[in-house]
Amino acid sequence: MTAPLYFDDLRVGDRFSSGEHALDEAQIKAFAAQFDPQPFHLDSEAAKDSIFGGLAASGWHTAAVTMKLMVSSGLQIAGGMVGAGGELQWPRPTRPSDVLHVEMEVLGLRPSSSRPDRGMATLRSETKNQHGEVLQVLTSKMVLPRRT
Amino acid sequence: MTAPLYFDDLRVGDRFSSGEHALDEAQIKAFAAQFDPQPFHLDSEAAKDSIFGGLAASGWHTAAVTMKLMVSSGLQIAGGMVGAGGELQWPRPTRPSDVLHVEMEVLGLRPSSSRPDRGMATLRSETKNQHGEVLQVLTSKMVLPRRT
Repeated sequence: MTAPLYFDDLRVGDRFSSGEHALDEAQIKAFAAQFDPQPFHLDSEAAKDSIFGGLAASGWHTAAVTMKLMVSSGLQIAGGMVGAGGELQWPRPTRPSDVLHVEMEVLGLRPSSSRPDRGMATLRSETKNQHGEVLQVLTSKMVLPRRT
Repeated sequence: MTAPLYFDDLRVGDRFSSGEHALDEAQIKAFAAQFDPQPFHLDSEAAKDSIFGGLAASGWHTAAVTMKLMVSSGLQIAGGMVGAGGELQWPRPTRPSDVLHVEMEVLGLRPSSSRPDRGMATLRSETKNQHGEVLQVLTSKMVLPRRT
């Protein structure tokens, strides 16, 4: 498929993948200092005694990096990638040594009943590390323009 | 209630509120440049012709600011605020002039069957601007320690 993609270009089952993003302690601590200032995201020593047993990225950091990877992935949507919401799971913590990538699959497609120029896609995005471990599952609703 | 709070301290219907966070163009563009580099989050002129009709924050930015406000709110959980996931909705865009605050309510409480020292709380968090408009609804599952 060639970008940019419209609602009408997608089929249920279509898959897309992203490039990679390597995390490190500095990125994890910088995000946490601004948005999620808790010891297990900020301080490697304090994190050892926490529920995570070591420094872990904020789930919202994993989500933000996932978005960065999706925006630059093979799924280039006409007019941009716009989500109306979604469901998030973080089955395991994201660690400083993790290299993230995202695998996406189109789960559903529904034309808008009120707006004939738009449709809604349900997209499942799995964020994995270099060991194939799933760090985040996001099932999102995306608004896409239709070809007119 | 006095912090820190354990699973056993919470009741369904308990409400908490956060302080405020004032957004601006610079914050919106800085977050977008790092995590969601799309024209409607980066460029006020380009945003006018987009689905948003003007500069809007990345939904993930709204989510990250929401977490910052929750972490410093009246809901101070023993061991920290740890989410296993949740459901997100962005009913309207977050704008550069918005001042955000978060209103939280405990929707459900369930002791862990496998871990007697933990419980799970379902929390609804509404992120509103200074006009009371709801920008984000997050229903999240939080892991809390039990009093032993």
